[in-house]
Amino acid sequence: MALTVMKFGGTSVATVERLQKVADRIIRQKEQGDQVLVVVSAMGKTTDQLVAMAGEISEQPSKREMDVLLATGEQVTIALLSMVLIERGCPAISYTGWQAGVKTEAVHGSARILTIDTTAIRSQLKVGRIVIVAGFQGVTEAGTITTLGRGGSDTSAVALAAALGAKHCEIYTDVAGVFTSDPRYVKKARKLKEISYDEMLEMAYLGAGVLHPRAVEYAKNSHLELVVRSSFSDEEGTVIKEEATMETSKSVRGLAFEKNVTKVTLLGLPNNVPAVSSVFDAIAAQHINIDVIVQNVLNKAKTSLSFTLDSDFLNELLDVLNTKKNELGFEEIVHESGLSKVSIVGSGMASNPGVAAQMFHALAEKGIKVKMISTSEIKVSTIIDETNLLEALDTLHETFELAQEESVHLH
Amino acid sequence: MALTVMKFGGTSVATVERLQKVADRIIRQKEQGDQVLVVVSAMGKTTDQLVAMAGEISEQPSKREMDVLLATGEQVTIALLSMVLIERGCPAISYTGWQAGVKTEAVHGSARILTIDTTAIRSQLKVGRIVIVAGFQGVTEAGTITTLGRGGSDTSAVALAAALGAKHCEIYTDVAGVFTSDPRYVKKARKLKEISYDEMLEMAYLGAGVLHPRAVEYAKNSHLELVVRSSFSDEEGTVIKEEATMETSKSVRGLAFEKNVTKVTLLGLPNNVPAVSSVFDAIAAQHINIDVIVQNVLNKAKTSLSFTLDSDFLNELLDVLNTKKNELGFEEIVHESGLSKVSIVGSGMASNPGVAAQMFHALAEKGIKVKMISTSEIKVSTIIDETNLLEALDTLHETFELAQEESVHLH
Repeated sequence: MALTVMKFGGTSVATVERLQKVADRIIRQKEQGDQVLVVVSAMGKTTDQLVAMAGEISEQPSKREMDVLLATGEQVTIALLSMVLIERGCPAISYTGWQAGVKTEAVHGSARILTIDTTAIRSQLKVGRIVIVAGFQGVTEAGTITTLGRGGSDTSAVALAAALGAKHCEIYTDVAGVFTSDPRYVKKARKLKEISYDEMLEMAYLGAGVLHPRAVEYAKNSHLELVVRSSFSDEEGTVIKEEATMETSKSVRGLAFEKNVTKVTLLGLPNNVPAVSSVFDAIAAQHINIDVIVQNVLNKAKTSLSFTLDSDFLNELLDVLNTKKNELGFEEIVHESGLSKVSIVGSGMASNPGVAAQMFHALAEKGIKVKMISTSEIKVSTIIDETNLLEALDTLHETFELAQEESVHLH
Repeated sequence: MALTVMKFGGTSVATVERLQKVADRIIRQKEQGDQVLVVVSAMGKTTDQLVAMAGEISEQPSKREMDVLLATGEQVTIALLSMVLIERGCPAISYTGWQAGVKTEAVHGSARILTIDTTAIRSQLKVGRIVIVAGFQGVTEAGTITTLGRGGSDTSAVALAAALGAKHCEIYTDVAGVFTSDPRYVKKARKLKEISYDEMLEMAYLGAGVLHPRAVEYAKNSHLELVVRSSFSDEEGTVIKEEATMETSKSVRGLAFEKNVTKVTLLGLPNNVPAVSSVFDAIAAQHINIDVIVQNVLNKAKTSLSFTLDSDFLNELLDVLNTKKNELGFEEIVHESGLSKVSIVGSGMASNPGVAAQMFHALAEKGIKVKMISTSEIKVSTIIDETNLLEALDTLHETFELAQEESVHLH
């Protein structure tokens, strides 16, 4: 018998009324004869409220206890959703992370799933019950409650689907699928029918918030098809699957972007590997994430090193670097805020070297200056002034014909 | 090393501010060099709010899922209280019911504790951590979450104290101890220094809401001393212990009462055991609790049967009995509402047969009519008109000199 895994995010389960809508959908799926496993997040703003309570107590609350606290959020959802289903005559049973056998490493706030003992779940599915599992949480071998961090419920759903051998995993969310770009910024943005794991990963890492990269990676490694779709409408979502099963004429599949970017340049840094890596070590020690990195060798002795980061962390970064100025050996720091990162993503790019050139050409035609560039097999990222962002997005969406339907041939 | 078990109820942990006050008290105890285990309830009105959410879904929500839902309440408290202690430099660790090894029978909403595996707790206490345990909850052998029902956190605290061999268990609550009667009704009510398990049990069963009878029974069976005291002041509370350790000149220790009582009489019931027990069976099947029972044999063939119950359940009771009127064989039902039950409690009564007479005499002197009587070794209960309640309480409090300090000689 086929198993369907359905995951509903916080907005989809925010009120008892919405739980009723979610139940409609689950019951419809169940009536098709499938076994159904459901993974849910905490209701609406519950997690934020719990975090705020902990914030009243401490600026850095105990991470172990934070996990104990946050895990209650999903536990409330599983109980209420099960009640709704049972009230409607549909046998259902709830499982917390530990009851569902989700074993994680002993790390708090961002634990990775190690194994899932599916014995209990399987026996419930077998007798026809709908199993409702709390996402985002697990338990260590020693019995300590852990949480999986951002995007944790997506990861739970994918991991459970993989462990149970589900054919696919449906992620119900407040958007209708994966778009060529963010519809709030790009009017012509179009929902994709399909996207490959790698493209989705790049989109996710580059700021498209639909799915957490960890969940996508997990699905990729497990060859598990994901479907992202709206929990508020019946329209078809976006299928995320192996590239090999898709044929498309397009090199570029989507357009991702991030705002609030600052570029920092260290001038007069000694031109040797230890000097450069010392800079990165100092930054990493403060848990500051840096992104696009460009090194420019000025002469045999000196080099300049540029990178970008979220503008919110600039002051912290400057503190770290200035404190260690002598030790690191650079001469001067310059920085420029008010920037954005715009990226094109598509697995067709690897075999189509003209794509990057086409991108720069399109931006240049509009007089948009590209300040930094970073490329990979399946994406090209550029740093531009934030004032140019909307124009750049529209131009690139047009250039790469993203608004037009693809001609996808499925096997 | 001595172990102190401290239990804090919902009012005591209602806000983060109150958690700080609770932490003060815990830290003071810890600084005395004891090992400290703390049991907490859900914060303030949390349980009521969760029950209300379930009520939006169903009039009779799944009991299994109700337990999953309610168990989150205490889990929030243990996490936050542990955070408070850790923030103040005091090593602490939280345990849910299942983590604390509290195994219960497989009953939802009112499970009894079967065993407690204290291995994990002991190892934490040994290394000097304060262990914060979620009261009210446990887990079945099969790993299903259960709750212990009303007074559950008291029971958790007592059971843990007994399992860990604590010398005593301190119950912190919103009253200063056990009183001779309810101070809201009897102005001269006085806080007792000590009370025996049996007296406390009668007081608890007769409506004194300080402690749940289950917790008292558990303490009695485990020979564990209980201390009931205020979490808002430093005044000494009431010690609940074996009678044998106390000597007192008083026969009556306290005065308990219940309002909103209805008396029901079945007239013309066949005078045989099966007929009477059929009535009780029919009532029990509807989970209606009845209390003081009096049977009056009219002649060899017929009997009349009276009993009391909470007036809120009268309609339900009448429905049951009228539906089964022919089957049960009685002729008529009469009922009278607006009554109260007043009881005197004291272990000295058993050896002092004049006490009941003294009670009726005192009430008669004030012209208060006693409608029903029920006695046990250590209590006498009377049913009177609720309009006479306050006068009866004052009179009896005076008659048995409850306002005066006892001369207690401790061994």
